[in-house]
Amino acid sequence: MRAEIIATGSELLSGVPETNSLFLSEELLSLGIETAFKTVVGDDEKDMEDTFRRAMDRAEVVIISGGIGPTEDDITRKVVAKIVKKRLVLNEDAHKAIHERLAGRGKDVLVANDRQALIPVGARLLRNPVGIAPGFFLFEKDSFIAVLPGVPRELYAMFREELKPALAERASGRLFLRRKVLHTCGISESAVNKAIQDIMRRAEPKVGLTAKETGVDIRIIAPGTSADQAQSHADRTEAVIRERLGDAVYAADGQTMEEVVGALLKQRRLTLAVAESCTGGLIGAQITNIAGSSGYFDRGVVTYSNTAKTELLGVPAGLIDRHGAVSSEVAKAMAKAVRESANVDIGLSVTGIAGPGGGSEQKPVGLVYTAVATDRGVQAVEHRFLGDREQIRLRSAQMALDMVRRYLIG
Amino acid sequence: MRAEIIATGSELLSGVPETNSLFLSEELLSLGIETAFKTVVGDDEKDMEDTFRRAMDRAEVVIISGGIGPTEDDITRKVVAKIVKKRLVLNEDAHKAIHERLAGRGKDVLVANDRQALIPVGARLLRNPVGIAPGFFLFEKDSFIAVLPGVPRELYAMFREELKPALAERASGRLFLRRKVLHTCGISESAVNKAIQDIMRRAEPKVGLTAKETGVDIRIIAPGTSADQAQSHADRTEAVIRERLGDAVYAADGQTMEEVVGALLKQRRLTLAVAESCTGGLIGAQITNIAGSSGYFDRGVVTYSNTAKTELLGVPAGLIDRHGAVSSEVAKAMAKAVRESANVDIGLSVTGIAGPGGGSEQKPVGLVYTAVATDRGVQAVEHRFLGDREQIRLRSAQMALDMVRRYLIG
Repeated sequence: MRAEIIATGSELLSGVPETNSLFLSEELLSLGIETAFKTVVGDDEKDMEDTFRRAMDRAEVVIISGGIGPTEDDITRKVVAKIVKKRLVLNEDAHKAIHERLAGRGKDVLVANDRQALIPVGARLLRNPVGIAPGFFLFEKDSFIAVLPGVPRELYAMFREELKPALAERASGRLFLRRKVLHTCGISESAVNKAIQDIMRRAEPKVGLTAKETGVDIRIIAPGTSADQAQSHADRTEAVIRERLGDAVYAADGQTMEEVVGALLKQRRLTLAVAESCTGGLIGAQITNIAGSSGYFDRGVVTYSNTAKTELLGVPAGLIDRHGAVSSEVAKAMAKAVRESANVDIGLSVTGIAGPGGGSEQKPVGLVYTAVATDRGVQAVEHRFLGDREQIRLRSAQMALDMVRRYLIG
Repeated sequence: MRAEIIATGSELLSGVPETNSLFLSEELLSLGIETAFKTVVGDDEKDMEDTFRRAMDRAEVVIISGGIGPTEDDITRKVVAKIVKKRLVLNEDAHKAIHERLAGRGKDVLVANDRQALIPVGARLLRNPVGIAPGFFLFEKDSFIAVLPGVPRELYAMFREELKPALAERASGRLFLRRKVLHTCGISESAVNKAIQDIMRRAEPKVGLTAKETGVDIRIIAPGTSADQAQSHADRTEAVIRERLGDAVYAADGQTMEEVVGALLKQRRLTLAVAESCTGGLIGAQITNIAGSSGYFDRGVVTYSNTAKTELLGVPAGLIDRHGAVSSEVAKAMAKAVRESANVDIGLSVTGIAGPGGGSEQKPVGLVYTAVATDRGVQAVEHRFLGDREQIRLRSAQMALDMVRRYLIG
């Protein structure tokens, strides 16, 4: 079963982000309903009519949000009624609920709000548990059409308490879907593609890729005739992909690298300090964005100038002269020094050229060294990142933390 | 002129927010092009074809993003070519640019990426200033159709540098809008509202407020029958608002606090070092995200533990015992110490409780001290921020940098 989610409201076309569909698509998926289209349309009668009709043609479930308030530009009810060729009539239950909620307000308030009790003949009312405007749903040809408020809090409550049971009934006996996202690091999109292209070509489960600064995400959408079956379908595919990609898969379903590293450090009771150059504090900021990071993160130094590398970390000026600040040798010296001076288990460092200036033929923009110092010694890795300054910094931070992860699971 | 913005990518239908359209609709508006529809469609050939055809029927400008990478599910090019009935051919310029960017990579990488140099016969190439996949645009019947990458930073750069000039030409001779955003810091939304409510009530230009972590933004949208007229309309309103709000306005049109502070430091030839506790490196990361920051930023220390504060900065353990690590006294000592040890003009520090744990009745979550040490002495400010851990950290960093700004313009 496929759905189209439609958000109405001109503000959503100029600057205001549309977020209800994120909630709705997840909820629909849990009922086995896949979202095929999301559309945003302004408060324009003709555009809305066009959008609603189109959705009914191509989706079995159409969820419309917004445009059911008390003002002039709230025309969703009217447009839906026109399309399904039904009159709008006052719903007694809705009328009563509105008056109860607005008890004590002036008469003009009540008159303006009474419009919200109008729903098309034959539609079923959806009560609003936390606001005024009620919603409704109806069937037209092969489509299930629901109208919800645009205010997120009201939409969430109405969906969960009122619409979900009705949709579950409609969806029952059909398809269940399980969605899973695997996060990888240190492997290119084309390499992932190559490693799992046979899986990606299969009709089911659907497997797709998204390249991000943090690495390549692998999306699995597995169907099944029950929630359990969809789950085990997804699990089997996940297992195959993990076997092929090994350690490159660092997390799943939105967990971040700093969460993974933080959890590992906590579990092994190990401590960390960082010495950053081109990332300028970014790694420290990421690590400490996790609540409880003070349990394993002691300190960081941002040695942006060469003097700072020498003064704060004791990296010999001669070493910097000989190899350059961006070198495997200096990265190693930084990691070793910060581990020793902070008296921690793991010292992590990064030095590189984030650009746009500062590159040369021998040491181009994007050349970055990350190093880890532990009880097993000091290791450095050379990276050659593409992208602009911010991308290079984000990738450097991610790959640096990934070195710590690989040490911890190694 | 009306536009439809189409985002492709199955991930955008299941959990990943679609954000490119926020940027695009603002940019289009500045060219006098109104966005009438926004649509999200998955990586499904039939659904994409349906969506693209529909958009060409109802909009004069169609902007499609995503699906032009090197992998199996990147099918946007193919679908567009099918609709306009043109073959895909290898574009020599694009092919050359891809090979230049991937110089040194293996042959299989190049073969996979070569697909990205294919564009429909007769289409005009849009170079990718910061990534690999090029875009293109073409005319079909009455519609202007452009295809851009899905990665936000690539889309932004390609739009600004390549597509905008072409669209501006297409849009010329119509209504002109000038959009201007003023960024304020250290003043509440209700205070801004009170100061300029007479201006906000006028029909034109439209003036609106948005509260963000970094402060309150004031949005001005001024219409005119020429670009110059719209511009001077916006300028007049901006001047009045700036006069009322004074130093609280720190920047305009997306310029960040760290850019403003960086430019001031550069201009006055002054240097900066930072000592961070609760922000964990965030201030350093922000400062060094600006190209050329090595000219004024020497170093940072992230003294997350008390030991680190004493060892790295020489903050006396007794001072921390007496006043607590989160205190005006410790903030001042940190700023003073980092200024002296780094031998810079300005020392900046922050110490606070970002939560969710660690708060007490006397020192609640959100209590943050920022301090600046300069040739005029040391000054500390106490803040009480609301919000979650991330919000408190972002607000702390912003207010800390604002202290430097106010010193520099004072």
